[in-house]
Amino acid sequence: MQKLTILINCPDKKGIVTTITQFILEDNGNIVYLDQHVDREQQVFFMRLECEFDSPAFKQEVFEQQFKDKFKEDFKLDYKIFDAHYTPRLALFVSKYDHCLYDILGRYASGELKVEIPLIISNHPDLEIVAKRFDIPFKHVPVTKETKPQAEAKHTELLKEHGIDLIILARYMQILSNDFVRQFPDQIINIHHSFLPAFIGAKPYHAAFKRGVKIIGATSHYATADLDEGPIIEQEIVRVSHVHTVRDFIEKGRDLEKMVLARAIRAHIENKVLVYGNKTVIFS
Amino acid sequence: MQKLTILINCPDKKGIVTTITQFILEDNGNIVYLDQHVDREQQVFFMRLECEFDSPAFKQEVFEQQFKDKFKEDFKLDYKIFDAHYTPRLALFVSKYDHCLYDILGRYASGELKVEIPLIISNHPDLEIVAKRFDIPFKHVPVTKETKPQAEAKHTELLKEHGIDLIILARYMQILSNDFVRQFPDQIINIHHSFLPAFIGAKPYHAAFKRGVKIIGATSHYATADLDEGPIIEQEIVRVSHVHTVRDFIEKGRDLEKMVLARAIRAHIENKVLVYGNKTVIFS
Amino acid sequence: MQKLTILINCPDKKGIVTTITQFILEDNGNIVYLDQHVDREQQVFFMRLECEFDSPAFKQEVFEQQFKDKFKEDFKLDYKIFDAHYTPRLALFVSKYDHCLYDILGRYASGELKVEIPLIISNHPDLEIVAKRFDIPFKHVPVTKETKPQAEAKHTELLKEHGIDLIILARYMQILSNDFVRQFPDQIINIHHSFLPAFIGAKPYHAAFKRGVKIIGATSHYATADLDEGPIIEQEIVRVSHVHTVRDFIEKGRDLEKMVLARAIRAHIENKVLVYGNKTVIFS
Amino acid sequence: MQKLTILINCPDKKGIVTTITQFILEDNGNIVYLDQHVDREQQVFFMRLECEFDSPAFKQEVFEQQFKDKFKEDFKLDYKIFDAHYTPRLALFVSKYDHCLYDILGRYASGELKVEIPLIISNHPDLEIVAKRFDIPFKHVPVTKETKPQAEAKHTELLKEHGIDLIILARYMQILSNDFVRQFPDQIINIHHSFLPAFIGAKPYHAAFKRGVKIIGATSHYATADLDEGPIIEQEIVRVSHVHTVRDFIEKGRDLEKMVLARAIRAHIENKVLVYGNKTVIFS
Repeated sequence: MQKLTILINCPDKKGIVTTITQFILEDNGNIVYLDQHVDREQQVFFMRLECEFDSPAFKQEVFEQQFKDKFKEDFKLDYKIFDAHYTPRLALFVSKYDHCLYDILGRYASGELKVEIPLIISNHPDLEIVAKRFDIPFKHVPVTKETKPQAEAKHTELLKEHGIDLIILARYMQILSNDFVRQFPDQIINIHHSFLPAFIGAKPYHAAFKRGVKIIGATSHYATADLDEGPIIEQEIVRVSHVHTVRDFIEKGRDLEKMVLARAIRAHIENKVLVYGNKTVIFS
Repeated sequence: MQKLTILINCPDKKGIVTTITQFILEDNGNIVYLDQHVDREQQVFFMRLECEFDSPAFKQEVFEQQFKDKFKEDFKLDYKIFDAHYTPRLALFVSKYDHCLYDILGRYASGELKVEIPLIISNHPDLEIVAKRFDIPFKHVPVTKETKPQAEAKHTELLKEHGIDLIILARYMQILSNDFVRQFPDQIINIHHSFLPAFIGAKPYHAAFKRGVKIIGATSHYATADLDEGPIIEQEIVRVSHVHTVRDFIEKGRDLEKMVLARAIRAHIENKVLVYGNKTVIFS
Repeated sequence: MQKLTILINCPDKKGIVTTITQFILEDNGNIVYLDQHVDREQQVFFMRLECEFDSPAFKQEVFEQQFKDKFKEDFKLDYKIFDAHYTPRLALFVSKYDHCLYDILGRYASGELKVEIPLIISNHPDLEIVAKRFDIPFKHVPVTKETKPQAEAKHTELLKEHGIDLIILARYMQILSNDFVRQFPDQIINIHHSFLPAFIGAKPYHAAFKRGVKIIGATSHYATADLDEGPIIEQEIVRVSHVHTVRDFIEKGRDLEKMVLARAIRAHIENKVLVYGNKTVIFS
Repeated sequence: MQKLTILINCPDKKGIVTTITQFILEDNGNIVYLDQHVDREQQVFFMRLECEFDSPAFKQEVFEQQFKDKFKEDFKLDYKIFDAHYTPRLALFVSKYDHCLYDILGRYASGELKVEIPLIISNHPDLEIVAKRFDIPFKHVPVTKETKPQAEAKHTELLKEHGIDLIILARYMQILSNDFVRQFPDQIINIHHSFLPAFIGAKPYHAAFKRGVKIIGATSHYATADLDEGPIIEQEIVRVSHVHTVRDFIEKGRDLEKMVLARAIRAHIENKVLVYGNKTVIFS
């Protein structure tokens, strides 16, 4: 049995739901999930569909072609069709902080994250030991201001070689070039250790401490050319008070970062994130 | 222009969404909101629809009859159709605590709650002054163990007389009889000052304090014959610690109660609550 | 019986707690609350004390003089001594939004807030009806760019006349001049409808919607010459998602604003807020 | 330099803080942390002190003896004195669920948890692979109804042999006997996957789903003879809705369990938990 997940957005129009669900029914599909949402201000229609096809004659390529012919132009449809049984391949980028790395690998090893992780890339050798514990290939690619282009060329080569679908910046402490980022639109997830847009840039916990906030946060978002400005996938917060030092902020923040990054990865690999403009629609 | 909200549940079946949306389109309706959800375990389909009909010829009664003829039997459809422009009429039941009462009346007076409140009923005279501040009729109906049947008869009479659609127990400190409750299925909202099902019954803050919990809560639910066992509409919590006394729990709890009750009222009057078995589906 | 609350900060030094508690014991005081905290980074000591004196001979003025003589210079002590039985006098500044006003007045009327509210000031006449419901004098003081100095002079006069201790900007939509603010250091509490320092300035809900955040917040802080930059007293947040419109943000935000402002007022009037630099220590 | 942490509780009495801090100062101690709290209802005084002694002549045994002589009887003092530099030795009990195990070991490996973990005990062999990844001895001690006494004898032997200070039941799916529990008062931390006291016993996520709650939780507590009734250390919650299945509850719950258990361990090993009756005081 084939199972597809379809993410759709297009200008809102009478009868879209009916027309598309009808089309799937006619192909003997069974719709097992349908969530749709209309942005009334911008008059945009969003939908996420999961449908199963149990006919042996069903061919995904044929379906995709017919879907395209039928809707792409008439409805000005923007869409993605995913094979729901495909296992995404992740690359983790890390530097020296290991908490997000341990968290992701623990979830991976316990089968919680249905992914392959054929590659960990780091600009420092320190975390090779963690990769080894989980038997995952670790590539140390040093980066300096001068060698950045070469390093990113190496990154790209490794990513292609391993057939990577999604890059996770698990507290990777290097800024990616615009050229690199543009190669992987909506395929790079970063975790920023603040409640964006508050405290953009370096040392957000120190800045939060200095400002005397009563709540700190973490934000996962797709990386874009503009640092810390990409579409937000998930945010979470925790209360702090005057008794907490910057060190406490960092410690509490680590738990936030792990949780927020894991939720973002989960939403992405389950094809529940639809990027629209600089925002995300997160289907349930 | 007529606007209807339709809440539906039925056994899940291929093509329900298509069939129903098609039916509405054929009547020249415009679907402005559609949210559907399938409970996979019980194989039950739930949907909330908002649709607009701008034809002058449109008649709600006719539509309802056709809808019934077409779906009720074939799909074993359980449904409710609401005129989205109708303003629900609320009765507030109170005793001596005034915080929920002030909160609801403040929201009502500021136009946040789109309702009529033609009636406040209390078993004590104390809060008449609050009713007066907001110019709302206040009926003092004393209740003793002996006079409960008569008191409830009086309640029913007042509710009928004022055409009440929804009863809010805003910290009303009397247990309603089964007979009374059964007259108003899914039409009585209660606020219980604990995180149900923890601390059922009287004095939940004292019980929570004694147990040494680190979080307290409040729960709004439909009143049923079983006390504190009705379908939950909304819950919220707040952290407490060893520095807090029972009095602090009560104070923090008041804010929870106000918020949770207000959210439940809002969800109900916007026809976003579908009761199924002893649970609720809350559409967004 | 006299009850005093003392807030203290000074450079940290061995033996401060002992010396000060000893001093109070010698005056036959009974310490019923003591909370102290040391900021290790800045080496600053903070303490809040509640002490009761039941000797009929006790005189607060004498105690204060002796306290000053003993500690002010030797310990470089910065401190405030409050009569814990004193009832603070609040002025509420409002414009057209009434939700915070209803919330504060409801809490006041129900006895939750132990304050006097002899004065509501507004630049618009709209909310006089709310003031009337709660029998509180309402002064309409229009403000234009040109008349701002005169308006603020009028404000100051009214505040003096009514012996106001604390000014609450309950969604007052006017920027106060630096001169006005400086007259009332740590005596003006504002509610900002964002999670500061995110979305400083006007229309924060619109900005939050545009940025696509997954959590919105509200912040209460002391007003300072720099807009939205004063010491933060309290913050709270609520989750939002792609299904929420700006209107939903505003509606959810209203509840946050009410709660956050009320908590800040409560902490202030119970003398639990110590301002230090641009931050607050909030004692429990 | 020696650093001690002292946890104290006793009947409240004038001058306790002064007397005790004086005593430490006289021994040339430097108080670097002091947090005290009075339970007004029960008139009990609680205090946590951190003090440093830099005299080479200082001897902890002598200090402890003098402390005891001076306070134990006069103040009816209940207290514990800890060497703040001591590294606690933990044993982890697990069954088949590995998420809490991975989380604790990740925190341990990254240096976040300052502990030794010389022992993992399980009634199943499945998680030996996880122990191996982190190079920690793993003992498989099968337990059946019949062999429970022998198994617990084996546990006790292993715990003694490895000098264990704290036992963590990291989703260990066996009920401990009263005899076993009584050997380790306030030294066994359990994680229960519900918001206690709601959903005591087995399958709390299923029970929560059935009840239709809108929030689920997790609770860490000291194990006592009464199952799920021990002193609560920490609780946390997460929102759920009708779209979530029992499987979703379990998945969301895993993150709660990890976080709540980690916080409890952290509080315990930093000597911040004082058990009093069936409740805890958690110092900040």
